[in-house]
Amino acid sequence: MPTVSAHCDIPCKIYDPVSAQLAALSVIRFMDLIAELDGKDKLSAAEHAQFSRLVAEKENHAEKAKHEVRVIWGDYFKQPQFAKFPDTHDLVHRIMLAGSACKQGIAREKGEELLNLINEFAEAFWATKGVNTYTATCPYPPEQQVVYPKLD
Amino acid sequence: MPTVSAHCDIPCKIYDPVSAQLAALSVIRFMDLIAELDGKDKLSAAEHAQFSRLVAEKENHAEKAKHEVRVIWGDYFKQPQFAKFPDTHDLVHRIMLAGSACKQGIAREKGEELLNLINEFAEAFWATKGVNTYTATCPYPPEQQVVYPKLD
Amino acid sequence: MPTVSAHCDIPCKIYDPVSAQLAALSVIRFMDLIAELDGKDKLSAAEHAQFSRLVAEKENHAEKAKHEVRVIWGDYFKQPQFAKFPDTHDLVHRIMLAGSACKQGIAREKGEELLNLINEFAEAFWATKGVNTYTATCPYPPEQQVVYPKLD
Amino acid sequence: MPTVSAHCDIPCKIYDPVSAQLAALSVIRFMDLIAELDGKDKLSAAEHAQFSRLVAEKENHAEKAKHEVRVIWGDYFKQPQFAKFPDTHDLVHRIMLAGSACKQGIAREKGEELLNLINEFAEAFWATKGVNTYTATCPYPPEQQVVYPKLD
Amino acid sequence: MPTVSAHCDIPCKIYDPVSAQLAALSVIRFMDLIAELDGKDKLSAAEHAQFSRLVAEKENHAEKAKHEVRVIWGDYFKQPQFAKFPDTHDLVHRIMLAGSACKQGIAREKGEELLNLINEFAEAFWATKGVNTYTATCPYPPEQQVVYPKLD
Amino acid sequence: MPTVSAHCDIPCKIYDPVSAQLAALSVIRFMDLIAELDGKDKLSAAEHAQFSRLVAEKENHAEKAKHEVRVIWGDYFKQPQFAKFPDTHDLVHRIMLAGSACKQGIAREKGEELLNLINEFAEAFWATKGVNTYTATCPYPPEQQVVYPKLD
Repeated sequence: MPTVSAHCDIPCKIYDPVSAQLAALSVIRFMDLIAELDGKDKLSAAEHAQFSRLVAEKENHAEKAKHEVRVIWGDYFKQPQFAKFPDTHDLVHRIMLAGSACKQGIAREKGEELLNLINEFAEAFWATKGVNTYTATCPYPPEQQVVYPKLD
Repeated sequence: MPTVSAHCDIPCKIYDPVSAQLAALSVIRFMDLIAELDGKDKLSAAEHAQFSRLVAEKENHAEKAKHEVRVIWGDYFKQPQFAKFPDTHDLVHRIMLAGSACKQGIAREKGEELLNLINEFAEAFWATKGVNTYTATCPYPPEQQVVYPKLD
Repeated sequence: MPTVSAHCDIPCKIYDPVSAQLAALSVIRFMDLIAELDGKDKLSAAEHAQFSRLVAEKENHAEKAKHEVRVIWGDYFKQPQFAKFPDTHDLVHRIMLAGSACKQGIAREKGEELLNLINEFAEAFWATKGVNTYTATCPYPPEQQVVYPKLD
Repeated sequence: MPTVSAHCDIPCKIYDPVSAQLAALSVIRFMDLIAELDGKDKLSAAEHAQFSRLVAEKENHAEKAKHEVRVIWGDYFKQPQFAKFPDTHDLVHRIMLAGSACKQGIAREKGEELLNLINEFAEAFWATKGVNTYTATCPYPPEQQVVYPKLD
Repeated sequence: MPTVSAHCDIPCKIYDPVSAQLAALSVIRFMDLIAELDGKDKLSAAEHAQFSRLVAEKENHAEKAKHEVRVIWGDYFKQPQFAKFPDTHDLVHRIMLAGSACKQGIAREKGEELLNLINEFAEAFWATKGVNTYTATCPYPPEQQVVYPKLD
Repeated sequence: MPTVSAHCDIPCKIYDPVSAQLAALSVIRFMDLIAELDGKDKLSAAEHAQFSRLVAEKENHAEKAKHEVRVIWGDYFKQPQFAKFPDTHDLVHRIMLAGSACKQGIAREKGEELLNLINEFAEAFWATKGVNTYTATCPYPPEQQVVYPKLD
């Protein structure tokens, strides 16, 4: 998964919420792997090291999810989009809070909340572009429901 | 000036809009230096190189300004702060647009707009913390008016 | 578009070539925007600045495309995958060369070549996971053909 | 708090030690939060994760403090400034060592030492610019004494 | 040791495997320091923090080793080089796997394997340039055998 | 060539000035390539793009050279080393200024000065470790004289 990133803001008109969705999926995945280690009686040094890595990557991907959403909201959403989806400011702010909660904690439901909010954002985004969407299980762990654009 | 950055979200409770203000001041400064080069008849290779550097740094600092504001808005602003400043979502979104305009163009008024909006954001931020503010000229180019907390 | 990035290598098992595909699409898009500027008689300072930004972003996204492919190839592809697709080493090396060509030049066919090779890589990747694919026009400029997984 | 960063060196003449001071304050804050966790009998997995994050952010901010000071010292300080403050080389080197000590340890006095040295550096910096300074408690945790420029 | 990095791909023709070798040496060194901590009965908070830092740096340097090798392989190695060293694709892929193993584990032999493979790569690289090599102990911990170019 | 980087400060005791030397060599190389373009009557769009890339990479590598020297000076040099080389503070400060000059200009002699100062620093560094050095032409463009440790 990509971690630190910066949007180009050219503007290139290539906006795709899939980057934020992938980051949120990764957050959930790291939470699951952290939970596996948490279930053990005692961690070996190698497992402690793995725990530390999982926390660091969870952090990076939660930040990435927040960043990617900020870019689409801050660059692409303007008057016509807000007219269709007047609650977008609030939705984006809730994504920011959910992203912070994912950094600060390890509870899976926080990761799921982040993904659900980003899916909602993705659905609105594609609707503003006149692109239909469908929901499917992503083809890798953590096998969550993800909103995709219908492309043919 | 610092450029790319990532907020810790610990939460450490150390929020300070001065980082965003410094970034916006830098954007204006780069625009001024770009305008100086733009005023010349023909650029030497060294001046072309300098032009290219100025554009790159303008980009970095506009991104930093957007990022720093997103962090304070997305981590610190919650119900009690929005109750006092109900237009914060909209103000932050205008900062995002102004930041993008600073990346995409070289017109000084776009930089001034970015700084003014961030000053407005800083004023609200300090008010939510019960800290008074004052406005002063920053002690370096581009010598703009900046909102600072009153600390004694 | 995301730019600099680092894969987590946890291993989290979340590999998705869409990040590399998005990066390659961005490269083509930047080449198109560069070509638009190149068609003008004389560039204003603002257009020169935009040219400089486009070159920088083209660079970042070509690097990102190379990096994302390296991660999937270097972490996920092992004996069973190579057995099915014995030319993968060579394909990946051609992607590296195409990515470098995109950094070094501005010719659109280099960008198209990069995307086509990454599409080929994506098709192989999904085949190794038993996921069918389809080809569709991506729902934004530069409106190229992209290989996507069939998810329902 | 901003973490990794790069100074532009345009030279833009916008030097402000406040970035280094904020980074040092953050280091102390992280040490305090680490000490809170250290006071507990047994850490939960979530607390272990938080510990790991605090260490990572302490590292980033100590590096940032060192970097910001290096930039001002290496770009702005020249013959006239050294004439006024002949011990600056040594002061900067002590800041580097204090920054490393903050990375390597968790003892609060190392963080305080870093801040104090940077305050001393800030005082010298503003003096070379003919700007008076005052000392005040920063308006957020860890509520340390910080040297600020007097701006009206 | 340098950590995150990006090759310029200008092409500047300055390729030197020493960067990858230094990164691999650092990985081994971090493993040794991790093993020292692992040998203790109980870690203090400061030692836990140090453990966390060592894991993070091991991660960074393993990524750097992979990245630096990818750059030389992906930019410099072309038909004439592959003619001389037809197994280079496979060697590079084994370096990627060894680098991942160094990220995921703490066993010193994985670090040694990474260094040995990179030494082999360095030897091939210098041979393609007609530069002789020699093997010597590097003048710092972990004092491993490193392949260097013979330069006079 | 590696560009942005961060030293680990573990301390790992792996200090090697070769990273700074490679960065300085790259700076000279980019200046030579810039000079080639500067010699042309009129630049095509592709050449303008290349010019822009060269400037950006020159910037990155000059920053890297400064950073790598700061790390060795700020982490490794202490009382015993300063006793042997009492002018190190001043030498390091001159490296900082030379690095800035390389960012700001395109004159080759600035790049040569940076390299020469870093070679001088490398010679002192190796002397403090009791390692002899020799000078040789580096085996790639720009084929400058570089100080290397004698290792057998």
